[in-house]
Amino acid sequence: MAGRNFLFVPGPTNVPDRILRAMAVPMEDHRSSKFPELSQRCLADLKKVFKTTSGTPIIFPSSGTGCWEAALTNCLNPGDRVLASRFGQFTHLWVDMCQRLGFEVDVLEVEWGEGAPAERYLEALAADKKHTIRAVLVCQNETATGVNSDVAAIRRALDDARHPALLFVDSVSALASVDFRMDEWQVDVCISGSQKGLMLPAGLGVTCVSEKALAAAKSAKYPRCYFDYQDMVTANASGYFPYTPSIPMLYGLREALQMLLEEGLENVFYRHSYIAGGVRAAILEGWKLKLCARAPRWYSDTVSAVMVPSGTDGAAVIARAFTRYNLALGAGLSKVAGKLFRIGHLGDSNELMLMAAIAGSEMAMLDCGIKVEPGSGVAAASAFWRERPAPAGAHA
Amino acid sequence: MAGRNFLFVPGPTNVPDRILRAMAVPMEDHRSSKFPELSQRCLADLKKVFKTTSGTPIIFPSSGTGCWEAALTNCLNPGDRVLASRFGQFTHLWVDMCQRLGFEVDVLEVEWGEGAPAERYLEALAADKKHTIRAVLVCQNETATGVNSDVAAIRRALDDARHPALLFVDSVSALASVDFRMDEWQVDVCISGSQKGLMLPAGLGVTCVSEKALAAAKSAKYPRCYFDYQDMVTANASGYFPYTPSIPMLYGLREALQMLLEEGLENVFYRHSYIAGGVRAAILEGWKLKLCARAPRWYSDTVSAVMVPSGTDGAAVIARAFTRYNLALGAGLSKVAGKLFRIGHLGDSNELMLMAAIAGSEMAMLDCGIKVEPGSGVAAASAFWRERPAPAGAHA
Amino acid sequence: MAGRNFLFVPGPTNVPDRILRAMAVPMEDHRSSKFPELSQRCLADLKKVFKTTSGTPIIFPSSGTGCWEAALTNCLNPGDRVLASRFGQFTHLWVDMCQRLGFEVDVLEVEWGEGAPAERYLEALAADKKHTIRAVLVCQNETATGVNSDVAAIRRALDDARHPALLFVDSVSALASVDFRMDEWQVDVCISGSQKGLMLPAGLGVTCVSEKALAAAKSAKYPRCYFDYQDMVTANASGYFPYTPSIPMLYGLREALQMLLEEGLENVFYRHSYIAGGVRAAILEGWKLKLCARAPRWYSDTVSAVMVPSGTDGAAVIARAFTRYNLALGAGLSKVAGKLFRIGHLGDSNELMLMAAIAGSEMAMLDCGIKVEPGSGVAAASAFWRERPAPAGAHA
Amino acid sequence: MAGRNFLFVPGPTNVPDRILRAMAVPMEDHRSSKFPELSQRCLADLKKVFKTTSGTPIIFPSSGTGCWEAALTNCLNPGDRVLASRFGQFTHLWVDMCQRLGFEVDVLEVEWGEGAPAERYLEALAADKKHTIRAVLVCQNETATGVNSDVAAIRRALDDARHPALLFVDSVSALASVDFRMDEWQVDVCISGSQKGLMLPAGLGVTCVSEKALAAAKSAKYPRCYFDYQDMVTANASGYFPYTPSIPMLYGLREALQMLLEEGLENVFYRHSYIAGGVRAAILEGWKLKLCARAPRWYSDTVSAVMVPSGTDGAAVIARAFTRYNLALGAGLSKVAGKLFRIGHLGDSNELMLMAAIAGSEMAMLDCGIKVEPGSGVAAASAFWRERPAPAGAHA
Repeated sequence: MAGRNFLFVPGPTNVPDRILRAMAVPMEDHRSSKFPELSQRCLADLKKVFKTTSGTPIIFPSSGTGCWEAALTNCLNPGDRVLASRFGQFTHLWVDMCQRLGFEVDVLEVEWGEGAPAERYLEALAADKKHTIRAVLVCQNETATGVNSDVAAIRRALDDARHPALLFVDSVSALASVDFRMDEWQVDVCISGSQKGLMLPAGLGVTCVSEKALAAAKSAKYPRCYFDYQDMVTANASGYFPYTPSIPMLYGLREALQMLLEEGLENVFYRHSYIAGGVRAAILEGWKLKLCARAPRWYSDTVSAVMVPSGTDGAAVIARAFTRYNLALGAGLSKVAGKLFRIGHLGDSNELMLMAAIAGSEMAMLDCGIKVEPGSGVAAASAFWRERPAPAGAHA
Repeated sequence: MAGRNFLFVPGPTNVPDRILRAMAVPMEDHRSSKFPELSQRCLADLKKVFKTTSGTPIIFPSSGTGCWEAALTNCLNPGDRVLASRFGQFTHLWVDMCQRLGFEVDVLEVEWGEGAPAERYLEALAADKKHTIRAVLVCQNETATGVNSDVAAIRRALDDARHPALLFVDSVSALASVDFRMDEWQVDVCISGSQKGLMLPAGLGVTCVSEKALAAAKSAKYPRCYFDYQDMVTANASGYFPYTPSIPMLYGLREALQMLLEEGLENVFYRHSYIAGGVRAAILEGWKLKLCARAPRWYSDTVSAVMVPSGTDGAAVIARAFTRYNLALGAGLSKVAGKLFRIGHLGDSNELMLMAAIAGSEMAMLDCGIKVEPGSGVAAASAFWRERPAPAGAHA
Repeated sequence: MAGRNFLFVPGPTNVPDRILRAMAVPMEDHRSSKFPELSQRCLADLKKVFKTTSGTPIIFPSSGTGCWEAALTNCLNPGDRVLASRFGQFTHLWVDMCQRLGFEVDVLEVEWGEGAPAERYLEALAADKKHTIRAVLVCQNETATGVNSDVAAIRRALDDARHPALLFVDSVSALASVDFRMDEWQVDVCISGSQKGLMLPAGLGVTCVSEKALAAAKSAKYPRCYFDYQDMVTANASGYFPYTPSIPMLYGLREALQMLLEEGLENVFYRHSYIAGGVRAAILEGWKLKLCARAPRWYSDTVSAVMVPSGTDGAAVIARAFTRYNLALGAGLSKVAGKLFRIGHLGDSNELMLMAAIAGSEMAMLDCGIKVEPGSGVAAASAFWRERPAPAGAHA
Repeated sequence: MAGRNFLFVPGPTNVPDRILRAMAVPMEDHRSSKFPELSQRCLADLKKVFKTTSGTPIIFPSSGTGCWEAALTNCLNPGDRVLASRFGQFTHLWVDMCQRLGFEVDVLEVEWGEGAPAERYLEALAADKKHTIRAVLVCQNETATGVNSDVAAIRRALDDARHPALLFVDSVSALASVDFRMDEWQVDVCISGSQKGLMLPAGLGVTCVSEKALAAAKSAKYPRCYFDYQDMVTANASGYFPYTPSIPMLYGLREALQMLLEEGLENVFYRHSYIAGGVRAAILEGWKLKLCARAPRWYSDTVSAVMVPSGTDGAAVIARAFTRYNLALGAGLSKVAGKLFRIGHLGDSNELMLMAAIAGSEMAMLDCGIKVEPGSGVAAASAFWRERPAPAGAHA
């Protein structure tokens, strides 16, 4: 089809041209004397993004899924008990992975549309007098439902229960888009990937591990090799990798980090909440539709899941948007298949990109018999954005 | 600023990624045995775009302006008389060039907002019994006012007056977007450039000359060298150029032509009229504003000039759109400075790209005190597009 | 430094501009209806490269190392016994991985400079009357020493011993450069990566598994999740992936496979042996130096390891080549550190690229006090190449 | 063919990847408030390259040929008398252009292989008591013969004759590779192009005009429009252009200028003489062949024209190099067709790039029956380079 494709799946996100350019490089020797300049710059800047001074960022050639596995296999022993909550397809898959890898999982089942239940975490931790729970898993942003969780509250639950378990946070669709604080929240492993807020293609598992996690890894007996933290940490110390890294992805990562730091992390977070606010205004006030997220406290600033009216089909809207309007929306997965469509608004975006998404969603809904008022979404978003200060310091 | 810039000046137009990729090539020897494959493919496909079998396409390393000069200096003698009409900044500049180069110009002055007056051309030609007018100049699409002219009607005027003058057509912002017929209309020189419907950066003057024009060039005495047709025609015959061509631009041109032919020229023209229709619906029915083009017969399918209400400033809208919403609109030039802003809708575009332009223009207008109904432009465009068949065969 | 860097480490190899261009794409929805076109084309063409009809190619977002791990963890049970040989850094690392993952490894230790000892494999297999050896591991090309092994001979050893063990082949620096025959050799898992003969950046683990291996995976109890074959096979069946794939790498892979098939695999293999022959002529006949590979049967057509005279330092040559001549050579690893330097000649290469490597190595050796005859390497390579037919069908 | 093409025509030269990346940009509004940042940076940095403070750089969308024409048509009146010398195809073409444009040319005919004859210029100027010669034309580097001329000596001739004529210098294949001093040599128009020392594709005519030239342009009567200096100077003053510029070429130019200034102009010049010295060593000492340039004072540091032995055909060498070895060499043009081949060594280059050219030329010559000693060229160049300091400060 003529013209640009408008991509609003919540990952991979739109890679800025500046990053695409930075990635269009000839290969080079990853064991050269010059190479550590590149790798050490990436690792140093990642620390700023994770807001950590004591943590250690690690970059795996993998998807974010690989970093889930790395957290479990490095820090735990076979059969260890972990505590997790499940309220969407991605929290489900992490729980499923724990079970497949032979861990015992206490699952807090939560309605899809709500987030991590801090009180129930506290209860469970408080009840575990013998401290057999070795790790607590929480997802900062459930991509499947557009639900944000309060990681700091989970930290407080651990503290209130005086529980020594490790804290593993999935920040795949949150890091570099909404605030994440490795040190302040005493997170032991933060798990993310390249294709969301970091504005890169998929292909890098980006994770950060605390000193406590690394210490746990030293004694943990779960077999592992590819995803071994210590191999990485040892090689990274001199600026190298245990196996061949992707040269374009490292140059891309360096550029992405530079763009984030040029803009300023707090400005990046404001921009995400500003953009998200306009999108939610379109959905709630313009179209008069509902979000999957059941209350403002759960609203995600990186992805909005729009519930279609009962009797209509979210999948049909997505198909129509793609084939007729060159617009890619996110699907409803598993339990919510057909019940919603998702608009990703993370990474490199601005008002008019989202206006295209809003206008295109509206046309596709109308074509599928969902009676929204034409132009209403754009009008509501317009009012939201026009009344607020523009994001500052945004990258060139 | 974060996110993409939305570019809707009527040239340079948005270069599709497929073309940008085709242009990212290492240099090569432009005198190699392999080179003519590339150049001859471009020239052969250009004939299809000009709809000619007897005409000769020529590619100058220049802007379109250079092709204006080439037409005059190759086909005419110093001081020759030409007939032209003026109704916008670009028709003005061509007339001005004629005068600076020492030609005598009979100028048909027309209100800005109207196009080439076929009846007055006929009168002037009929009155020139001695055939001292050597060339008739007409602009198919005045980019400054968004006005389309009927080139076939000018051809009929020449025929009706049985006048032998050469016919020079400026199709800079029309070729490859709206229909142009070199052979059927017996055009002697068609003038265009790379940065409009051909979806390339500026840098190539793309022109096509009839056998009659080449014959005139043989005897014409106006001094010329860089823009000499015959030098080009002679070198092109074996696939080479008289001086070093731009390798990336030729690869880009080859790709652009292939995309146009894959889509099908008639589909390309339908797409442009379809997109333009939605934009005009937004302006006229949504915003209730006026176009600079005074009647439907003058409406351009490649650029729309939106008159701002009196007492408001089109330049302020453009500045606001650029600095706040990352949206580039075209300015009012010369006589219409401040009175309008222009939305280019030519080249590689689709509904959602224009939705972004419409929504962004609306926000900028509201910010500048122009009271349009929020969402009205998008709603009108949406209705227009949803009721009509989608463009077919569009390139990947 | 001015000018191009000349890259001759044996991976990552030089990525052709045509592939770099194919990779410079905007992101797209990996769950769209259009996406399977891309993924299924890659998988279908990979079967041709593996020379298999019954095998199943799998692409992991990982390095080749990840595919080593996948072979072990998918097809075996914890503590299973495997048979392997060790004669270089990469065969060492694979053995080491087996041990770290808790497998019992029978290691055939071989002098570095020789390859897989088929007779000793046969002995070991014949001696294993109870068939407790579950898998036989062999490396087709030891990148660290430039040694080629005869995989077909290992297959014959299994057959002669009537042993049912699975056959795992590391073809990381062989696949798509020298002949590999999945079906004919009845290989159960072939392991490779994107950054060698496939001419891509690192980032894809490219593997192929036989029906027998997939059947083994069904019952195998080793815990695994990220590298699970069945998850991949299930998702791939409809053209999708279990987790977000790298869009640029898939487009790059599609282009790479198309280039290989345009050239013709047998032509690709001839080209590699032709190029390698010239390099070896330079080393052996020109410089009068020795290869690490001890006999012609072990000579690798993808990488040559050049022994430096005793008393001189290979690492100094590499450092000098890099800092003064913009030339990246491969280092001696582990046991052979300092004793050799390596010239990779796999992937996209031609005579003059290697001439630059030869001339540059010569200058660096002379600068480091290694007395080779100036110009002798180039003269010997020149004679070799001029006397033989040029590679045919090479890609554009 | 597999592997890189080795490009050694003396323009277009090899565009560094860093510049190719800088050029891969989306289009933008060339009338935006942000645009002057880009254009004014280019113009300011160009002044440094021309070594001028009082001169005015101008960038035409054209080839260098266009700047020849601009110099003549802006500064002269129809029929004016100019003094020029001819000793190669490009000096010939400039003389030819003067004649075609109706100027009267006093041509100093010089043997091809020698350069501009300062003494004869002096004689001619001294003899012109009435100062009817309006301009003196000199070519700093004749690309067709690899001959360098002494521009400062021509300036002295003008001064010694106390002649007020304008001084026009063709520095197309010299600027940014060898020293050029606009102000010190009181050059009135310097003419160059993008595709040589500036390391860009063809497409920009890059010129610089003195205050005296601009003053002459004010009163000069030759008709001109596209190439009018004053239109450019007026528009450039605020950072804009009279017609649409090429966005990618301007970004490319900005990057190229930054690379030259990072390296340091004097380092750039040293690097060119260093590289050229190695190439000449290969030709003269290695191969025992002759240069077209007849004496060291004429040796060009940007291109070497190698005379093939009588009875052999330079064109055959070039054809063989291209079709068999993927090596592009420059042809002998006009009078010297078949008698020589040319190796360009300007722009972005280093030792090993030239080693490939030398080794490839040698193989092609041997294949065509020219008996050079195999390896002799590389050995001689190697000795030359190893004995001298490496170029400093070279760009990354």
